[in-house]
Amino acid sequence: MIRRAKHPLATESTRRLEAFTDGVFAIAATLLVLDLTSYSLGKVDSDAQLWAALGEMWPQFANFALSFVLLCLLWMTHVQQFESIPRVDSVMIWLNNVRLLFIVLVPFATSLTTEYSEWLAGRLAMPVAFFFAIFASWLQYLWALSHRDVMMPDVGEEDARLYGRGSLSALVISVLVVVLAPFIGSLAFLLFLLDGPFTALLRRGRARPRPAPPRP
Amino acid sequence: MIRRAKHPLATESTRRLEAFTDGVFAIAATLLVLDLTSYSLGKVDSDAQLWAALGEMWPQFANFALSFVLLCLLWMTHVQQFESIPRVDSVMIWLNNVRLLFIVLVPFATSLTTEYSEWLAGRLAMPVAFFFAIFASWLQYLWALSHRDVMMPDVGEEDARLYGRGSLSALVISVLVVVLAPFIGSLAFLLFLLDGPFTALLRRGRARPRPAPPRP
Amino acid sequence: MIRRAKHPLATESTRRLEAFTDGVFAIAATLLVLDLTSYSLGKVDSDAQLWAALGEMWPQFANFALSFVLLCLLWMTHVQQFESIPRVDSVMIWLNNVRLLFIVLVPFATSLTTEYSEWLAGRLAMPVAFFFAIFASWLQYLWALSHRDVMMPDVGEEDARLYGRGSLSALVISVLVVVLAPFIGSLAFLLFLLDGPFTALLRRGRARPRPAPPRP
Amino acid sequence: MIRRAKHPLATESTRRLEAFTDGVFAIAATLLVLDLTSYSLGKVDSDAQLWAALGEMWPQFANFALSFVLLCLLWMTHVQQFESIPRVDSVMIWLNNVRLLFIVLVPFATSLTTEYSEWLAGRLAMPVAFFFAIFASWLQYLWALSHRDVMMPDVGEEDARLYGRGSLSALVISVLVVVLAPFIGSLAFLLFLLDGPFTALLRRGRARPRPAPPRP
Repeated sequence: MIRRAKHPLATESTRRLEAFTDGVFAIAATLLVLDLTSYSLGKVDSDAQLWAALGEMWPQFANFALSFVLLCLLWMTHVQQFESIPRVDSVMIWLNNVRLLFIVLVPFATSLTTEYSEWLAGRLAMPVAFFFAIFASWLQYLWALSHRDVMMPDVGEEDARLYGRGSLSALVISVLVVVLAPFIGSLAFLLFLLDGPFTALLRRGRARPRPAPPRP
Repeated sequence: MIRRAKHPLATESTRRLEAFTDGVFAIAATLLVLDLTSYSLGKVDSDAQLWAALGEMWPQFANFALSFVLLCLLWMTHVQQFESIPRVDSVMIWLNNVRLLFIVLVPFATSLTTEYSEWLAGRLAMPVAFFFAIFASWLQYLWALSHRDVMMPDVGEEDARLYGRGSLSALVISVLVVVLAPFIGSLAFLLFLLDGPFTALLRRGRARPRPAPPRP
Repeated sequence: MIRRAKHPLATESTRRLEAFTDGVFAIAATLLVLDLTSYSLGKVDSDAQLWAALGEMWPQFANFALSFVLLCLLWMTHVQQFESIPRVDSVMIWLNNVRLLFIVLVPFATSLTTEYSEWLAGRLAMPVAFFFAIFASWLQYLWALSHRDVMMPDVGEEDARLYGRGSLSALVISVLVVVLAPFIGSLAFLLFLLDGPFTALLRRGRARPRPAPPRP
Repeated sequence: MIRRAKHPLATESTRRLEAFTDGVFAIAATLLVLDLTSYSLGKVDSDAQLWAALGEMWPQFANFALSFVLLCLLWMTHVQQFESIPRVDSVMIWLNNVRLLFIVLVPFATSLTTEYSEWLAGRLAMPVAFFFAIFASWLQYLWALSHRDVMMPDVGEEDARLYGRGSLSALVISVLVVVLAPFIGSLAFLLFLLDGPFTALLRRGRARPRPAPPRP
């Protein structure tokens, strides 16, 4: 189904792709809470014991909040990308599916990292899941940029070049997180705080702001 | 990404933010039922025993219904807010994410309150989760009001002042619920019945009704 | 917030109410599968044993399919109702929330009916949940009809009268199911097969077909 | 409610049918992860043991990925079908409900196939669930094609004939998978890689590309 040469047609509008994506992100983000609800607080006989038991859940809470925030970040990236992509071809849809596959894995990776944080595989679970989701997102963006005439008709050559560079930021950071997580655990995710400035740096000059789209 | 001065652009339409939000609310509300399905009714040998076992589940049912109704209330608030907000900036989106984080915690907080209602932390779980969700909602509203020219272009100065005051109602009530819950438990949530009159009182004079939006 | 007299304004469009409703129905319908996945098939040592174990799950499968089909039916009713309702007031939204509350209870009621089908409360769980959902749906419809000028502007007097009568059909059938279920169990739900003809009978004459709405 | 003769009206737009369908697909796809999270890795005392425990989960991972990809494929088919179907009648909606019923069963079928892959019923669970979903999809397509004037007004006679033939591809493949799965297990699903070429072959000549729909 891949048609490289000329790429004559990209017939599908993105409305339902966006609806499906929003649904998967919303459910993955909400399923994270099951890691909390399924945690057994054990026997509690006093206020102090309950507070203590909740206090011992801090890794659960921390990783829950972390995964939730990262899912929100990745969802926001998706929204931003597709604001300038009115149409997609089947390659784009499959790359989107792969992206969602790793989003769906996030609740599993989160519980793995929480429960086995002292072992290497545990520390790597969340970083690796997010790396692959971001990698698929990056491929998707590259593909859209390289078929700009069909899939990003409103983006000029100069903007495309800058966007392309900027999109490297999240990818590089997610690689660094995978590298650092074995040593410092989930703290490595703090690197994502640098995503904004790093994106701006990579672009070295800002793409002109697009006009606000009309409300549908 | 925060641009305070001049706030020149808020490029994102709210369509997908609303879709993501509706999804998270719908899932959080539906996951509440898992607290009922995972409850073990124990061994049942007669009609009377089954009725009795179901009767003993009344705290489960009460807190299920309470959380469901409160989630609906908070969802309605979101709908109302965003009826006059056609565009958002990244601060708004992040405040929305924080708001949703506490919505996602509601099923966990509900099961905690149900299971540990005799202890302080148990009694506080639901009130605190709803307080933070409402607090984020209030911050979001303040932010939109203070960038009214971009994010609420159809709301006049006078209306904005009145809306701003009215939005305090839910926040004040949610604080009172946190204060009272240690003493009277989930009954404290009955205070939310005063939300309507209290909002009207704070506004001291009603914002003029907006004309009905056309159906999309 | 209820404004009976004159009912001057119903400001909210139904777009997000429909999105929230579709989400809750979709999740409730999908959660039904958890009743199957959580069922333990026990130890299996041969093909014959696995077939037998699956055969013993027939009440699980039957009630899963039944609840799924009924949820679809109730969802279709919602879609049909809101095709002629472009705007809602807060009473309508709250009645919708109550309707959804019982939809959310369906997975719980289904597992109760499956597990405790030999006891009265078990046999009643599903019928009662569906009865309340249909009752709220009927109230919602009555409310919309009695504020037709605002909420159903395109429905004429004669059609409104016929619709009102026709909407009784599902309600009457759901009452009959509650009455019969203690004696014949889930077979009572077969009465819903009569919903189509019974609706037509109650209308005694058909509302003129509305023209197909344009695709959004 | 079925009106064969003349088929005078198909009044419902497909907007909410699509929303409900997207929701069910998104949730079914996301619930697949519960099969991973509920898997117990057992006691782990070293890095090597955790890697080994994760390695033993390969059938879980493989079937998770397989079901996810197949769900994406079936969702894409739905999107493509409904791009040329602006309106539906009640037969179409019920066929859609049946289709979704088998989609909802996918997480159950997947866990059955994973856990009981050495027995016949286990090997058949996934293939059979997908076969029925595809069968309902095929019936739906046939129904739409045979009422083309109402439900597919923009599709010409020649295109309809070619589409009809092409739609046989997935059905034939899913039958072959059911036949082969008892012998070669989930490998049989690799046949779906032939769906693209086989569809083209069946059409013997390509339907003219439809122009890209405008973005909503």
